[in-house]
Amino acid sequence: MLGPGKADLLERIGQTGSIAAAGRSMSMSYKRAWMLVETMNAAFREPLIESSRGGAKGGGARLTEAGAEVLSNYRKLEEIMAEAGAARIGAIQSMLRDIPDGK
Amino acid sequence: MLGPGKADLLERIGQTGSIAAAGRSMSMSYKRAWMLVETMNAAFREPLIESSRGGAKGGGARLTEAGAEVLSNYRKLEEIMAEAGAARIGAIQSMLRDIPDGK
Repeated sequence: MLGPGKADLLERIGQTGSIAAAGRSMSMSYKRAWMLVETMNAAFREPLIESSRGGAKGGGARLTEAGAEVLSNYRKLEEIMAEAGAARIGAIQSMLRDIPDGK
Repeated sequence: MLGPGKADLLERIGQTGSIAAAGRSMSMSYKRAWMLVETMNAAFREPLIESSRGGAKGGGARLTEAGAEVLSNYRKLEEIMAEAGAARIGAIQSMLRDIPDGK
């Protein structure tokens, strides 16, 4: 329903007031950013993002109340998981190879 | 490092003793199952899966001790997350549209 990519997109739309700018800041094509917005808006009872095209300011986008609520719950969920799962995540990570530093 | 797909593949390799059979049970091509196994083995300090080709029984595969440990930690992590995050997940899910029952 919602993963790290969509949550980041939501957050950046809220920050930038623009779907295009939010997508760009994630190196995402305009088309993909719009597609994800439409997917999210269709999946929830109430749209998460409201957008207007054109107008004096060239259109814009903002999170709806539902969008802000979903994003907030998602971020809290990430925090809870990071805290609750830290020991298990640490156990798995300690078994991973060191990642070469790319020199 | 590890997600639901790889974890399921690990588990099924442990159950079936075969990379091909494990992949098949997930509708995964033989090639993809092998690729995921190689990816996992390369990512961890110790291989998670040991395989032998040919021989009287036509080869086979099994989880190593490291493989069993990683899988066990992953499953515990899923449990912890499901419990800890239940309220937040519920809050997000309650905002989703009902999924049509496909009639």
